Amino acid sequence: MSEPQSLDILQELLAIPSVTGDEEAIAAYVERFCREFLPAGQVIRSGNAIIALQPSLNPAATETIVLAGHTDTVISPNNFTGKIHEGRLYGLGSSDMKAGDAVMMEIIRAYGRQWAGAYHLVHVLYDAEEGPYEENGLGPVLEEHGHLFRQALLAICPEPTDNLVQVGCLGTIHATVTFKGVRAHSARPWLGDNAIYQSTGYLNALAQLQPVDHTFGQLLYREVMHATTTTTNNTKNTIPDTFAININYRFAPGKSIEQACREIEELAFAHGAASVDFTDLSPAGDVNLENPALQKLIAISGQPPQSKQAWTDVARFSLFGLDAVNFGPGQGSMAHKENEYVEIAMVREYERMLLEFLGERG
Amino acid sequence: MSEPQSLDILQELLAIPSVTGDEEAIAAYVERFCREFLPAGQVIRSGNAIIALQPSLNPAATETIVLAGHTDTVISPNNFTGKIHEGRLYGLGSSDMKAGDAVMMEIIRAYGRQWAGAYHLVHVLYDAEEGPYEENGLGPVLEEHGHLFRQALLAICPEPTDNLVQVGCLGTIHATVTFKGVRAHSARPWLGDNAIYQSTGYLNALAQLQPVDHTFGQLLYREVMHATTTTTNNTKNTIPDTFAININYRFAPGKSIEQACREIEELAFAHGAASVDFTDLSPAGDVNLENPALQKLIAISGQPPQSKQAWTDVARFSLFGLDAVNFGPGQGSMAHKENEYVEIAMVREYERMLLEFLGERG
Repeated sequence: MSEPQSLDILQELLAIPSVTGDEEAIAAYVERFCREFLPAGQVIRSGNAIIALQPSLNPAATETIVLAGHTDTVISPNNFTGKIHEGRLYGLGSSDMKAGDAVMMEIIRAYGRQWAGAYHLVHVLYDAEEGPYEENGLGPVLEEHGHLFRQALLAICPEPTDNLVQVGCLGTIHATVTFKGVRAHSARPWLGDNAIYQSTGYLNALAQLQPVDHTFGQLLYREVMHATTTTTNNTKNTIPDTFAININYRFAPGKSIEQACREIEELAFAHGAASVDFTDLSPAGDVNLENPALQKLIAISGQPPQSKQAWTDVARFSLFGLDAVNFGPGQGSMAHKENEYVEIAMVREYERMLLEFLGERG
Repeated sequence: MSEPQSLDILQELLAIPSVTGDEEAIAAYVERFCREFLPAGQVIRSGNAIIALQPSLNPAATETIVLAGHTDTVISPNNFTGKIHEGRLYGLGSSDMKAGDAVMMEIIRAYGRQWAGAYHLVHVLYDAEEGPYEENGLGPVLEEHGHLFRQALLAICPEPTDNLVQVGCLGTIHATVTFKGVRAHSARPWLGDNAIYQSTGYLNALAQLQPVDHTFGQLLYREVMHATTTTTNNTKNTIPDTFAININYRFAPGKSIEQACREIEELAFAHGAASVDFTDLSPAGDVNLENPALQKLIAISGQPPQSKQAWTDVARFSLFGLDAVNFGPGQGSMAHKENEYVEIAMVREYERMLLEFLGERG
């Protein structure tokens, strides 16, 4: 075993800009990297996603673990890209989540075709996670190549979790709830019917909603439904005939998208909405505390697991039928922040824990 | 006296595009036209507005009448510019209000320095009436050259009124009423405070407002206050800390802008608004039924006067201290419409009535 090179790999990844929608260069780099250390048949390119199969030589290894990291970033200024200062390595995407990607790639580099851990590994390094649900690069990977790991024991997404294991996640739906009126010139409003005013009963009902707590063991998930943006389709001299409210509903693991949609519709139609249109439908991620691999990972992390209130691709794996968790070396508080960095000691610790979990102490 | 040439002049005006903000060419045409028939010292160019003084040779004439027409138009398609069909002359701005402008210019052409009517005339042909209050070309004219007609008996704006006399007009104010909350991620709304929900009491109060009728003689003006547009300054994954509502208040003649502003503030602050910012302040136009020149004009029009529910530059003259009315040959229903036209017979009739009023039967 050579010295771990995760940081060198991370430096390479940080040097390649990869804002969502512009991942061609980083995908080419990752593909070339994987092909250097794995046989050609074990590296698959799918759009700007790369799937790298690293089976174990260990005859006791029967189960598969998926490691799935996105390579894209959200645009944000960083004045110190590649710089190390006080134990922190700076760069856009360092915490979210190129540090996790780098550890995955270091496992590919260090062990290559000699991997002999407790599990077969499937690495997925994919694009467009930070964009809309429908454009996420993990979607086509699951659709076209999911058969390669459908029976996997667990998928680990190295989202920035400060080296904690985050289990499950809320689903999220955006819906446009529209109230209708009759258009008129604002000098003659009695000829019209103001659509904004139709909505007050609904807004009051939303305002009175309290978070609905769902617990799984010690884990708490809070269901919340809120109006976030509003639109009228008129000039300021016109009584609007349309008032459209964007509703964001975050719903707990265990609830289906269909059920969540019904709940949005019921509240809206009970208060006079004319229509409800769903614009984003992302499922909840299941909480699978009984999964033995997950129990082992939690034990190795040395900390109680956490619930995930925001949405992540863990939910996409859930929908696919695979247990998944977030577990990564980045800091959650650094995600999408100016001058993002990652703590180098956290990356080292993550690498150690991940290899221990995978049955290989390096 | 030669044959009236109003229609020829109108054709010339229709052939010169003059959408608001692009009145250089039409101003040059009008200036050249006026200089052809009036002494140099009686034609003043002020930006893209032209003031043409046409004093009367009649020794009995002591009073002044202002004729003030805007030359700009609101952009709208017209497939028949300059065409005459079934007694209608087509063109953008034909009704609103180049037909009125053409009659003014015909008086300048036909009588020139030989005008001997009952009044001295001041013609104002100005730009940017269809844009924001602050950019209206009549503003600088009143400010810089208003001394030329400050004592005038009446100002007539030939806005399209179907040859009826329209008296006074409502004032109009736009205000941004803002409700404040605390921003948060929409997955953790309990850390925030949704600004939209703060507004429901106010929206309900607005919804319950009824038009407040103000009558002057037989003339009815209806005060109305309505929310017309809304804005949040967030993404759809954010609980908004700001909800801004555009309020349009149309207030009756006799009420000051200051009083109208106070009424907006009182209702908003009584229902928890954080701030009220005024974005457009246009005064009401006074109703001056006792003005003898106005009485004479109404008699000549042969129809009862009408109130004006929408705002016009009559209000600007009011604020300047001059009685003013709308009286023009265009059709109100044609204003800002596709394939706008003017009825030629209406223009002829208008010309006859206006000259009778001015004490000159042509």
